[in-house]
Amino acid sequence: MRALYFDGEAARVQSVPEPEDFPDSALVRVSLAGVCDTDLQLVKGYMDFRGVLGHEFVGTVCEGPGELLDRRVVGEINFACRSCAFCETGLERHCPNRRVMGILDADGAFAEYVRVPVANLHPVPESVTDEAAVFAEPLAAAFEILEQIDVPAGSDCLVLGDGKLGLLIAQVLRSVGARVRLVGKHREKLAIAHRLGIETIAHEDHRPEPTSLVVEATGRSDGFDRAIAAVKPRGTIVLKTTVAAHAEIDLAPLVINEIQVVGSRCGPFPPAMRALENGSVDVASLIHERVGLADAQEALRIAASPGALKVLIEAG
Amino acid sequence: MRALYFDGEAARVQSVPEPEDFPDSALVRVSLAGVCDTDLQLVKGYMDFRGVLGHEFVGTVCEGPGELLDRRVVGEINFACRSCAFCETGLERHCPNRRVMGILDADGAFAEYVRVPVANLHPVPESVTDEAAVFAEPLAAAFEILEQIDVPAGSDCLVLGDGKLGLLIAQVLRSVGARVRLVGKHREKLAIAHRLGIETIAHEDHRPEPTSLVVEATGRSDGFDRAIAAVKPRGTIVLKTTVAAHAEIDLAPLVINEIQVVGSRCGPFPPAMRALENGSVDVASLIHERVGLADAQEALRIAASPGALKVLIEAG
Repeated sequence: MRALYFDGEAARVQSVPEPEDFPDSALVRVSLAGVCDTDLQLVKGYMDFRGVLGHEFVGTVCEGPGELLDRRVVGEINFACRSCAFCETGLERHCPNRRVMGILDADGAFAEYVRVPVANLHPVPESVTDEAAVFAEPLAAAFEILEQIDVPAGSDCLVLGDGKLGLLIAQVLRSVGARVRLVGKHREKLAIAHRLGIETIAHEDHRPEPTSLVVEATGRSDGFDRAIAAVKPRGTIVLKTTVAAHAEIDLAPLVINEIQVVGSRCGPFPPAMRALENGSVDVASLIHERVGLADAQEALRIAASPGALKVLIEAG
Repeated sequence: MRALYFDGEAARVQSVPEPEDFPDSALVRVSLAGVCDTDLQLVKGYMDFRGVLGHEFVGTVCEGPGELLDRRVVGEINFACRSCAFCETGLERHCPNRRVMGILDADGAFAEYVRVPVANLHPVPESVTDEAAVFAEPLAAAFEILEQIDVPAGSDCLVLGDGKLGLLIAQVLRSVGARVRLVGKHREKLAIAHRLGIETIAHEDHRPEPTSLVVEATGRSDGFDRAIAAVKPRGTIVLKTTVAAHAEIDLAPLVINEIQVVGSRCGPFPPAMRALENGSVDVASLIHERVGLADAQEALRIAASPGALKVLIEAG
């Protein structure tokens, strides 16, 4: 089959063997896949990954248990062992033995087919299009915040970063009634947020005023310092930027102001799917461009360009 | 009166004016005061403080409202404005207009007398000696952890740092039924913890194994990295080290493992006083030496020596 394969040097569309079977897995024919900033980091050496890239997808089950066969599905990316202490307490996403689709020891979805544990698959309701469903994974990561902390209706939230994840997070926080402001550097992305009814602030105009909840989704190593400057005493910072290099950080304000910092990664698919179904989160306006699988290399290039939002790869 | 005054260059016992009156304050004749690591940092330039040092004390009210007159008291160190939004929501310790005794714009307790807002004073029960009561402030800081996070009975806790605060924190966590291990570098301090029935680990023998709650009380800038190495996914780190310089920190594990970091500073006096009263926390074994106010400079020197625990200054 054709796939975007990263060999440690470069990512190229090439012919690779079909995914190997493993116990309790299903084979999914990929329809659409989304490029994430993590993919852009992986090709720079993050996680020392080798293999087929891609971890956001929607597709159709072509081999698997009868109840899933021919159904449209999306899939969680953490392939857990399901037998360790973490898995037994519902923390499969933190299984120390996990493989992670397109990120750690497991081939990804920028391919004609991908193999996924059956337990990771979620059927897509008929009313949710492929173009929406392909956002399930990053949207689940946005919903993870609500799993981790209490966001009361009317509370003030500041989202730092107007990228794909920042735009999803701002909408998720707003969906529970929070008063959300989004700070970003890209006029066109802020315009999208504005059209979605979210209060926006251009980075250069942002004067930090003490905020209860600051979500750091800048993807930059200075994001944490900016979050500390913006959060109020006893407030909370949610950290979403994984790829930031080592940063020089002054921890004293954290202690003096008794700030809570919550690292946040992958999230639950069911609330994400419900939001796609009921339209409480808009993802259509986040689609930047669609390219065919044959041009998947080009998809990465476009996704890395300034101002780009979600680039979709049409595999089906 | 005599006091240990820091002029920005050196701390010297000298004659200073008696504390000036301010509204709703009481004058306290200091009996005993404790040297805190923060005092040692202040004389190195932390907070750019000038004035009388000292923020841990027990004394007797000699000017103030009738119900407090002649009573033994301890006092909270944050002098709040009591009219801002923080004060109105019970967050006086985070009042942005606060002065802080012996730390920020307010003279401290290494003196014959100290002036304290009446609202900050807590009477000392008769059964609590001065030698115990003088620990109310640092013990309250240890109890602050229980105000901020849930520590279930039987949960596994690791305290990094066998200093005064680490020894108090270990006891407080144990008092709610947690399984506490204390890691430290000082044989004699670990021996004290051991005598108090706390499991101890010498720093050089410590092999981090994933722990639910790690309290960082090392007072060192590498403490945070050590805490991250020891906490398990979805676990909590409580940060108690204020004075750490800027540290180079890799935030990625925080995000990937969804760690929660909670900065923790001053705490509530009532539970501290109850613990001193019922003996659930031992402080007597933490007393390293007692010196007279005339030798308060020497008290700082002793407190700064390796292996020192609490040095008390006899002002009365």
